[in-house]
Amino acid sequence: MNKSTTTRQIRLERRSPSHWRVTFDLPPLNIFGPHEVPKLETIIKSIETDERVKVVVFDSAIEGVFLTHYDFLAKLEETTSLPLGATGLQPLPDMLARLSRAPVVSIASIRGRATGVGSELALASDLRFASREKAILSQWEVGAGLVPGGGPMARLPRLMGRGRALEVLLGAHDIDGDLAQLYGYVNRSLPDSELDGFVDALAMRIASFDKLAIADTKRLVDIASLPSDAEIEPEWVGHSGLCLCPVPLQQGRTGCGRSGLRGHRSVRGAAVAW
Amino acid sequence: MNKSTTTRQIRLERRSPSHWRVTFDLPPLNIFGPHEVPKLETIIKSIETDERVKVVVFDSAIEGVFLTHYDFLAKLEETTSLPLGATGLQPLPDMLARLSRAPVVSIASIRGRATGVGSELALASDLRFASREKAILSQWEVGAGLVPGGGPMARLPRLMGRGRALEVLLGAHDIDGDLAQLYGYVNRSLPDSELDGFVDALAMRIASFDKLAIADTKRLVDIASLPSDAEIEPEWVGHSGLCLCPVPLQQGRTGCGRSGLRGHRSVRGAAVAW
Amino acid sequence: MNKSTTTRQIRLERRSPSHWRVTFDLPPLNIFGPHEVPKLETIIKSIETDERVKVVVFDSAIEGVFLTHYDFLAKLEETTSLPLGATGLQPLPDMLARLSRAPVVSIASIRGRATGVGSELALASDLRFASREKAILSQWEVGAGLVPGGGPMARLPRLMGRGRALEVLLGAHDIDGDLAQLYGYVNRSLPDSELDGFVDALAMRIASFDKLAIADTKRLVDIASLPSDAEIEPEWVGHSGLCLCPVPLQQGRTGCGRSGLRGHRSVRGAAVAW
Repeated sequence: MNKSTTTRQIRLERRSPSHWRVTFDLPPLNIFGPHEVPKLETIIKSIETDERVKVVVFDSAIEGVFLTHYDFLAKLEETTSLPLGATGLQPLPDMLARLSRAPVVSIASIRGRATGVGSELALASDLRFASREKAILSQWEVGAGLVPGGGPMARLPRLMGRGRALEVLLGAHDIDGDLAQLYGYVNRSLPDSELDGFVDALAMRIASFDKLAIADTKRLVDIASLPSDAEIEPEWVGHSGLCLCPVPLQQGRTGCGRSGLRGHRSVRGAAVAW
Repeated sequence: MNKSTTTRQIRLERRSPSHWRVTFDLPPLNIFGPHEVPKLETIIKSIETDERVKVVVFDSAIEGVFLTHYDFLAKLEETTSLPLGATGLQPLPDMLARLSRAPVVSIASIRGRATGVGSELALASDLRFASREKAILSQWEVGAGLVPGGGPMARLPRLMGRGRALEVLLGAHDIDGDLAQLYGYVNRSLPDSELDGFVDALAMRIASFDKLAIADTKRLVDIASLPSDAEIEPEWVGHSGLCLCPVPLQQGRTGCGRSGLRGHRSVRGAAVAW
Repeated sequence: MNKSTTTRQIRLERRSPSHWRVTFDLPPLNIFGPHEVPKLETIIKSIETDERVKVVVFDSAIEGVFLTHYDFLAKLEETTSLPLGATGLQPLPDMLARLSRAPVVSIASIRGRATGVGSELALASDLRFASREKAILSQWEVGAGLVPGGGPMARLPRLMGRGRALEVLLGAHDIDGDLAQLYGYVNRSLPDSELDGFVDALAMRIASFDKLAIADTKRLVDIASLPSDAEIEPEWVGHSGLCLCPVPLQQGRTGCGRSGLRGHRSVRGAAVAW
């Protein structure tokens, strides 16, 4: 384990018993990898079970990035050796589904690039606020010959409708703060200088409310708005392709040649990327 | 019955056989209480059954308010003695569900505060237009330790997506006209000086159309977009808690202490407020 | 067949094997009629089955119009003699449903009026971009005493929520580019001078991506966002009314008197128009 690995962390700060902050500090670029899976899982479990926490804010300590893609350079065994989550889903979509259902309000405070896992974590959070000047959201995977795997095909159309969701996913381009606001990708984009103050004030306000009222209200909203695990699961059918490549492929291909990510094509023909 | 009660009314004006106006004139603050339930029910029944009415506009005669919350100061027996509605739901959600399904176009013209029942009536209406300068929408209930009960957890996410709906409900803050337009809480916000003219012109336009074409089109839109009564009903499981408190509570509590509204916690642990 | 009929065409241009353009050139006003049904069906079949096409752009060669309504002046037999489509739906909704499900990205580039069939084709396309100055979208049918028949009651509320969808359908008014963007009727409105360049660049970008990744991603988005054929079909129950009128009608009527389109009222009381 080199120095940069040892200093990589996901910090949980309890600003008060009811108001937590989770900060990604994974230099150099907040790339999320297999070492981070159990760290985040521990935090998600705390959010689910702590009796006093009411609101948790996710942010970044790294200039220019919120949270980016899954670490394709990590050894595949490090990912494949991780157990399935409590929902029966793969570890990352499992944690995201559990975050959405937790009886706690989650807020993504997005400054810098939120791509791949970063966009998916933001989408699984309850509320999303973006820096107007510095936020970039993207599901870039189709541009690399892959299919996103962390739930965006289920979550994006419910936020912004089919047309804009397909543009985000199939255009695979960078979305800045104001376009993200227009499309409903985030609740609002705010001037960068106001983002932290706005999110802090909202989090402290919610933290002052009754936890049971929060949880009951959220649960009732979820009836109409939350995708089921069964809907998210097919996005991951190709996960074994990610882990066990090269495998027999449709149309005689052994990988997505354009991106050079050979082997990230599943036996069922679905390319999957975090 | 004191003077202010005797002058409180919900006025139904037939501007033409096909174009009706319903005006809340409940001084001092358009607080909706048990005395108003049968008055509104009579109007809803007329809207449902009249063969000529095609469009009905809801507005207010009180400066600064559209329609606000349920009257918590009324005697509980006045509410509990009201019969269930035709849908089997409690009287208020019953009327709102019936309004949404009526073969008539309902338009909320929002000037001033539309909070609690006011927001819920607006959400149950087909179209919503707001004064840019004077409209304030809010579901404030979670801020008082309560859960909204008139359908907003079912209706808000269908209008604006889960993230913005959770912000409205769990942030429990005031939403002005332009933010309401951005979020899709209203169709549009308009300069206050233009609101009445715009709504009148639209209502008269729709009133000139064929009633059967209106009704058939609305019914087909409802397939994709209207929550079922079964989805709205759980928001009201706590209604008996509202009426029959104090009752045994989850976690040993007998009320929502913060708001001082002791007893507004149901046997099933859901705090419910209109 | 007169001269204007012989020069009416729907042009398919293969800009590259993966990037196609379909241009409506049906003078004088891009009115879509029974002669165009088999022409468009042939194109839709090519889009569905070609192994290399990844993106198809729909646009117009006629100044001032994108694509407008169905040709009510054509002989009814020309429409009624057309066979049902592969989905079992009537020919036009059949083609639109198949376009939405094709493993290809469809983009409507809207300059001029997109009304009736034009709006419905745009709504069935995956992405929609509009000229800010020149696009006009409208479902005008209710204003003529008819019910739209090509899927907008299923598709509009999923894009923009129930309230705005009901305004579009029951207000039956013209929607310009910026309002269409605000409502989510289109992905974005762009300055007219930028529309073509923007759409071309996006189409070429998508055409450079992996076809299987595009198709898999689109299919997963469709789970959450695409109406079923069963939901679209009731919009067409009145089709026999369109073709076999005059027929016995509800309420003793034999047509929608206001529009003068006598006979366009079905036996089940639903007036239907393309």
